[in-house]
Amino acid sequence: MDCSVTPLRHGGLSLVQTTDFFYPLVDDPYMQGKIACANVLSDMYALGITQCDNMLMLLGVPQKYTDKEREAVIPLIIAGFKDAARDAGTNITGGQTVLNPWCIIGGVATSAVLAGDIIIPHAEPGNVLVLTKPLGTQVAVNAKQWKEQNNERYKKFMSSNQLTGADIDRAYQEAMFNMARLNKKAATLMRHFNARGATDITGYGILGHAQNLAKYQSNEVKFVIHNLPVIAKMSTVAKASGNLFQLLQGYSAETSGGLLIAFPRDQAAAFCRAMDTQDGNPSWIVGVVDVGDRTATMSPKPRVIEVTTKME
Amino acid sequence: MDCSVTPLRHGGLSLVQTTDFFYPLVDDPYMQGKIACANVLSDMYALGITQCDNMLMLLGVPQKYTDKEREAVIPLIIAGFKDAARDAGTNITGGQTVLNPWCIIGGVATSAVLAGDIIIPHAEPGNVLVLTKPLGTQVAVNAKQWKEQNNERYKKFMSSNQLTGADIDRAYQEAMFNMARLNKKAATLMRHFNARGATDITGYGILGHAQNLAKYQSNEVKFVIHNLPVIAKMSTVAKASGNLFQLLQGYSAETSGGLLIAFPRDQAAAFCRAMDTQDGNPSWIVGVVDVGDRTATMSPKPRVIEVTTKME
Repeated sequence: MDCSVTPLRHGGLSLVQTTDFFYPLVDDPYMQGKIACANVLSDMYALGITQCDNMLMLLGVPQKYTDKEREAVIPLIIAGFKDAARDAGTNITGGQTVLNPWCIIGGVATSAVLAGDIIIPHAEPGNVLVLTKPLGTQVAVNAKQWKEQNNERYKKFMSSNQLTGADIDRAYQEAMFNMARLNKKAATLMRHFNARGATDITGYGILGHAQNLAKYQSNEVKFVIHNLPVIAKMSTVAKASGNLFQLLQGYSAETSGGLLIAFPRDQAAAFCRAMDTQDGNPSWIVGVVDVGDRTATMSPKPRVIEVTTKME
Repeated sequence: MDCSVTPLRHGGLSLVQTTDFFYPLVDDPYMQGKIACANVLSDMYALGITQCDNMLMLLGVPQKYTDKEREAVIPLIIAGFKDAARDAGTNITGGQTVLNPWCIIGGVATSAVLAGDIIIPHAEPGNVLVLTKPLGTQVAVNAKQWKEQNNERYKKFMSSNQLTGADIDRAYQEAMFNMARLNKKAATLMRHFNARGATDITGYGILGHAQNLAKYQSNEVKFVIHNLPVIAKMSTVAKASGNLFQLLQGYSAETSGGLLIAFPRDQAAAFCRAMDTQDGNPSWIVGVVDVGDRTATMSPKPRVIEVTTKME
């Protein structure tokens, strides 16, 4: 639960707010802005809140930028952030720009909601867990950087002959696309299909966030992750990099990852079909809910689902 | 108007939000936290909003800090921020801490208000302008730094024999006290005494912010500043520094400065007396409201009011 929820003095409303920052890790400033915005909103969508009332944009502009660099980069970051906010149906009503050694883009999302607007985690044994974006974004972004630097790491995992340069490029494109994609449709469909709580996957990886979601359950349940949908070839990169990312252990950090949602078993498949049709993207059943002590674990031999890109 | 005001979907409410960052400029981390919090809240108080529903705290922690430095400094900054929030009657319900080259402390303040809770600027000719904190905080903070470095600037303005080292220390203490002081009581009393709009004085100095306030007036008025209440001796420092700060021109930046408030003439003195009694701090009538084109100017020879410290 990364959102702050504050009861207001008026009308039974609560203020739901979330804030996040993003150190740009991709080379396209417009996409940086989109990803940062999608990332901020994601915490709110994980509660099943589909309408964000407004956003503030927080921007750290490197003091070392020349005027030319600033004029080239900053308007694109802002445009990306604004376009994603518009896609989310919200407005940027304020914010602050400061000089900073690093380029940082962040935001604050706020929604005033009624009690029923928040899905409180109440998974039950027999429910299943669905994931709405593939894992491996950080692996893909790093692999791409290593490729561009043509460094030792890159040469090492390429020497196995299991990968081509094109695999890395495609994985990077797929990661960018997924990071910039809003979890809004997933939040909307969650409600339709009687979701029993969700979390968004970011810095702690799928298992880290599953553990966090388990802790907040109203019922005595545990989560077991069986399947890991991973951007194509990224599990190969992760293995060849000596488990640097802890991807197959469930701890690889994601930026603006998908929602991990608990559903009644019969609703999960219907949700995945609706996501496919309405959002145009696959979702996967990745685990089950058992009786337990509000923890989450990985099955000993998780199955890796290779998620091939739309571009192929 | 540094706040964002967003009409909500529910109950005739509007969301008022403001965000600000503060690069710590004083050597006491606890006071840094208090000042940062007072500074964020100040924009809200300038609208006559006295109740902040919640705050988020945003913290940039230098990656170069050793564990020892981090453990010594960061908890004190957070404690100062929290204590000021508690004094304001609000709670910190969330936020984000990130690694950053510079130490930055900032926040987001949010209040859900009814239409009548915001004082829309509607000054009239014949009104007067009141200021609730003395000017010169940045001059004092810089003078103190120069004193500690014993640098050429310090030696130069000390060579005039108009100043002592103790003057600089006292001014710095007075600046710290004023920066950390909330404008909450001023916001509360504004309403009692029929204020016609206000702004808080920060980076653009008293005249810069007066110009901004003039721009948003519903009536065709102009503001003229006659008096400059300045922390004792800081106008001497400012002159001896070759107008580096533009203090006497009205543009010296303040951190977490006072409110500049337009009042009907007969209410202004009553407000100042109430501030003196209830807040324990002086306020000053600093200017007048005339007919005009929504601008603000300084009278050709503004009178400097030397504000001596409580410690004397």
